[in-house]
Amino acid sequence: MTTIPCESYPMIGGDGAHSYTQNSAFQRSVVDAAKEMIHQAVKNSLDFKNPSFSRIEAFRIADFGCSTGPNTFTAVENIIDSIANEYDGQDKNNPPFQFQVFFNDHTNNDFNVLFMNLPPGRKYFAAGVPGTFYGILFPKSTLHFGHSSNALHWLSKVPEDVADSKSPAWNKNSITYSGSVDEVSKAYSGRFRDDMNTFLSSRAHELVSGGLMVVILPCLPEGILLSETTIGMNFSNLRCCLMEMADSGIISEEKVDVFNLPIYYPRIKELETVIHKNGCFSIEKMENMARLMKHVPPTVGAVTSHTRAIFQALIKEHFGAEIVDDLFERFAKRLHQNFYPGNLENHKHLELFVLLKRIGCK
Amino acid sequence: MTTIPCESYPMIGGDGAHSYTQNSAFQRSVVDAAKEMIHQAVKNSLDFKNPSFSRIEAFRIADFGCSTGPNTFTAVENIIDSIANEYDGQDKNNPPFQFQVFFNDHTNNDFNVLFMNLPPGRKYFAAGVPGTFYGILFPKSTLHFGHSSNALHWLSKVPEDVADSKSPAWNKNSITYSGSVDEVSKAYSGRFRDDMNTFLSSRAHELVSGGLMVVILPCLPEGILLSETTIGMNFSNLRCCLMEMADSGIISEEKVDVFNLPIYYPRIKELETVIHKNGCFSIEKMENMARLMKHVPPTVGAVTSHTRAIFQALIKEHFGAEIVDDLFERFAKRLHQNFYPGNLENHKHLELFVLLKRIGCK
Repeated sequence: MTTIPCESYPMIGGDGAHSYTQNSAFQRSVVDAAKEMIHQAVKNSLDFKNPSFSRIEAFRIADFGCSTGPNTFTAVENIIDSIANEYDGQDKNNPPFQFQVFFNDHTNNDFNVLFMNLPPGRKYFAAGVPGTFYGILFPKSTLHFGHSSNALHWLSKVPEDVADSKSPAWNKNSITYSGSVDEVSKAYSGRFRDDMNTFLSSRAHELVSGGLMVVILPCLPEGILLSETTIGMNFSNLRCCLMEMADSGIISEEKVDVFNLPIYYPRIKELETVIHKNGCFSIEKMENMARLMKHVPPTVGAVTSHTRAIFQALIKEHFGAEIVDDLFERFAKRLHQNFYPGNLENHKHLELFVLLKRIGCK
Repeated sequence: MTTIPCESYPMIGGDGAHSYTQNSAFQRSVVDAAKEMIHQAVKNSLDFKNPSFSRIEAFRIADFGCSTGPNTFTAVENIIDSIANEYDGQDKNNPPFQFQVFFNDHTNNDFNVLFMNLPPGRKYFAAGVPGTFYGILFPKSTLHFGHSSNALHWLSKVPEDVADSKSPAWNKNSITYSGSVDEVSKAYSGRFRDDMNTFLSSRAHELVSGGLMVVILPCLPEGILLSETTIGMNFSNLRCCLMEMADSGIISEEKVDVFNLPIYYPRIKELETVIHKNGCFSIEKMENMARLMKHVPPTVGAVTSHTRAIFQALIKEHFGAEIVDDLFERFAKRLHQNFYPGNLENHKHLELFVLLKRIGCK
């Protein structure tokens, strides 16, 4: 198995006003909602009597796509608390595990900030692992629990065809596959299938037999187009601002035409198909977490900061750092004028909680 | 065992003109000289038939005090090449190990630069582990090989008494224990003994029985005072420059009086005594590497850059960032006027290579 070449766009580092650390309240609500589901996952699906878990020196957990915290710390604590409780219940005679936690993200993630933010008094040994999760990051069969929250909708790269004016998949009028021609959607979904398959095969290599993998991933509900969701509306808002700036001569229209986000929100069926085809994991649970999530009514400020924290690196690289302030001022202004139309409840994407268990493998 | 509170002063990060990355040629010559000794250590002291090494999923190596590279990468490659060769010779029927390497340094080390510099095409899985090595950093019995080069002469902190004007150990006229009163030397050597004992007990917890630990450490030859070595002369040069700046009113004399370096160069006997008293390791080898080291005649520029890369963080914290350029210009000027007197060969410290093996432990 080879690591696929991967473009990477880190969340904004540091802990300033625009940082991911300060602008990840949505991701926090996801992590909080997952707590009970992780507890149930450990209770129902982790079998400490499995030979893979006997006489291990340490229980090893990895968070794939951890960013800079603090959400990754909360997620990891939820996992450890659940395991410690449950193991104590199942095998009172054995000493409790020592936990070793690996925080993984791209090499250009701000690991210095991540390490500075590590909770004092934590109950685990911490390590950072740099590199794309679309490839093998650990020795064979050395992990017991994998976790990835709000990370796998980032593709390894934009499908090449969509930025090629000679291809039928050229995506001139959009920065995503929303509202686009069929070829664009196909190029995006093809990239997602390949990436997800590589992710699963890599984790299958690393996890012990019987090991668990929690994937939390935004998905599109059946029958709803990306352009009909609030996320899709944000993307189209962002593109309108870029076009406005092109019209004013601040950036070139050609640059906007070839700008595409390496992001894909799969349908549930699509995800199931990749997992089954890959064959290394059984699906133990698949459930929309939206009902468990604390509803935080979006404000213009929050949506703008959140969008900026996530996409600033991408935009800087493509258009240059000097346009970023201007772009997000326009973005906020457009949101003020025209917040989301209609009933927001109809425009939500799903937050899918997927529990996978490592089975015998090819 | 508890982690002792620890002050930390990272080498200069990044890869600019003053960075550690660009100013660690001396450390490089140490790593190069250690290559053959590591090869012999693996050949003579690593027993793959020891139950600790049977059926392991991964061979785990940690470098304690790795800084930002590139020397840590060379050291780790030397270890891996030696093990891969030797294991192949001892047990041809078993598949080769997968290697996992943990790079450890203080939390404020520049791990971002370390990760960016990781060699492409490396034969190991890499992870960064932030935190002082004067404390436990890994789960019990999960490491097979430890390494620490030119790091253990950094104490966890300056002994408190030496900055206390009411103590008999007050170190008013020096920034180290060189040429000082007996009480100062005692305070420093006491701190070293405690720190080294904590280091050994921590590594004893982490290493498997039969696991190896290589420590490379600058030491003082018998009968030579620190003030008589070139290192000691650098320290006294640095203090003269600080006093000069105090005389000119740039910094306060009181601040110079309480400035002390948390650095200690033990005698060989002193080191042996701590290791024996600790009782967790056998000494497999102890040898001065100086004869193996490439002799690079020191230039004023190299000595100045090297000293700055190592001590800038400490000086910044104590006196403020604004004095650093001035200080090292004075330092270079003084070196020009009065480079080291006498025969340099008589003024070398030892570079001690110590090979330890984990034995049954308290």
